[in-house]
Amino acid sequence: MTALPTLLVLDAEPPPRLGRLTGRARVVHTDEAGLAGRLPSADVLLVWDFTSHAVRSAWPGGGPRPGWVHTASAGVDHLMCPELAASDTVVTNARGIFDAPIAEYVAALVLAMAKDLPRTWQLQREREWRHRESRRVAGTRAVVVGSGPIGREIAHTLKALGVTTAVVGRVPRTGIHGPDDLDRLLARADWVIAAAPLTEQTHGMFDLRRFGVMQPSACFVNVGRGHLVVEDALVQALERRWIAGAALDVLTTEPLAADSPLWRVPGLLLSPHMSGDTVGWRDELGAQFVELFERWAAGLPLRNVVDKQRGYVPGH
Amino acid sequence: MTALPTLLVLDAEPPPRLGRLTGRARVVHTDEAGLAGRLPSADVLLVWDFTSHAVRSAWPGGGPRPGWVHTASAGVDHLMCPELAASDTVVTNARGIFDAPIAEYVAALVLAMAKDLPRTWQLQREREWRHRESRRVAGTRAVVVGSGPIGREIAHTLKALGVTTAVVGRVPRTGIHGPDDLDRLLARADWVIAAAPLTEQTHGMFDLRRFGVMQPSACFVNVGRGHLVVEDALVQALERRWIAGAALDVLTTEPLAADSPLWRVPGLLLSPHMSGDTVGWRDELGAQFVELFERWAAGLPLRNVVDKQRGYVPGH
Repeated sequence: MTALPTLLVLDAEPPPRLGRLTGRARVVHTDEAGLAGRLPSADVLLVWDFTSHAVRSAWPGGGPRPGWVHTASAGVDHLMCPELAASDTVVTNARGIFDAPIAEYVAALVLAMAKDLPRTWQLQREREWRHRESRRVAGTRAVVVGSGPIGREIAHTLKALGVTTAVVGRVPRTGIHGPDDLDRLLARADWVIAAAPLTEQTHGMFDLRRFGVMQPSACFVNVGRGHLVVEDALVQALERRWIAGAALDVLTTEPLAADSPLWRVPGLLLSPHMSGDTVGWRDELGAQFVELFERWAAGLPLRNVVDKQRGYVPGH
Repeated sequence: MTALPTLLVLDAEPPPRLGRLTGRARVVHTDEAGLAGRLPSADVLLVWDFTSHAVRSAWPGGGPRPGWVHTASAGVDHLMCPELAASDTVVTNARGIFDAPIAEYVAALVLAMAKDLPRTWQLQREREWRHRESRRVAGTRAVVVGSGPIGREIAHTLKALGVTTAVVGRVPRTGIHGPDDLDRLLARADWVIAAAPLTEQTHGMFDLRRFGVMQPSACFVNVGRGHLVVEDALVQALERRWIAGAALDVLTTEPLAADSPLWRVPGLLLSPHMSGDTVGWRDELGAQFVELFERWAAGLPLRNVVDKQRGYVPGH
């Protein structure tokens, strides 16, 4: 009988579905403080607590490292560090789980802004019946920045609502624009949707200059990563009415502190990083990891393998 | 030279596009108080102020009556009376203008409720970062009550979002359920959308019994007419948690008085009868009337002719 592989799980609460690995793995749970000490004895690391940045700081320490790290998230920026990127360790992510939920969430935000629902419900609280005209969504133009499965699914959903939608990726390919087209597309978009991974190229890409390129009637939505946006610049763009509105589901600091001025910026809608998290999502994430583990244990090639230099799973 | 026909316009503010009728009609504007006195000399009545019920009370008076009445609205309940219904006068409506805008509005409400946006923005006002799970829309079930162009367009839009959608009309036909299927469909719907005309058959159809048939997780949306719903019953259904939420764009009394308790019913979202009114709508309504007037002046058959017994334009 061979020794069972050790699966180290960084979590705050235990993931569902791991019971299926009984007899096939020795499962060890750890919190952030225990991570560095347990990394050398782990064959596999499951980053279940995807809000944690502990891997990034613990990884460079001495000793053996697991050959496979899986994160229960689409983004990998919270765990990548040069030492992990340079290593032979395979990193996989939760590609596929969040695509459709996030696309629906973006559609919800776009429609809510077009129909002025936040203002309507404000007037309801004030007991005021005030008819206004709202905007059609069909016939408007959107740009989705991010050409992974999430960005493409957002485009698919907006197109289903009659929105003319362009997708911008790192390199141009069939149906996807390259970065050279971005400013031209931004200048005529009614909706700008940020759904890119956080990489050196995308960090801070939505800055004062880019908000200045957008139309005064445009609305901006970020469901990617908080650091895609220079938040001060967004606040200025809203205050100066360079753009008409914005919705952020991700922020540079999460959770947002109660005393942050961002809570009360006129025209800025905030939500607590929940766009992809629909009922059953944790179960789906658990099942996805179990399936990957079974491939790994059988010696089959893993899926959802992240290009550690680029910071995401290269796709079609 | 023949005398120009007299076009009487019941309005609060003059409609756009009537300038095109210069030299082809004598246009007389009236308010509600002047309507009865001017009706006998009118060849055509344009009910531009579609919030007015003045036609219903002025029509039965003595004297000649216009041979054609057009209302700049989808519903005709605000102007129909037995004397008009029994007369030879042709009634036309604004069929076609509101379909797609209302369908988008319903999609906005369904997505907002699925994604819990009202609660998210309440938490934003309270400066509280509280992650929650939300609902997928794809894979849920909707029932649309009302099989006219508005109801069918709502179904089309919801289907584009992956919602399995059934439409219920006055009589069953291909792709449309009849009233006998309604309760069975309500019992398994996640979303119940009221988009029917107000007729004897539909008045008060959403009563306590029907809310009792729905699932506790169901949400109800009314974009048809306020009197489709027994508002007290809806309030009870929400208070007893027989259903999860509701959104009313139309109410039995419009505008809703500031002291109405409806403003503050938990789980009830209100908007001021604006679902179909997107930028440019008044212009489209004016252009539609001018087009109909040109047909009428040329002796061609009118379009959008209302079946005055049924209370709507019979369709496919």
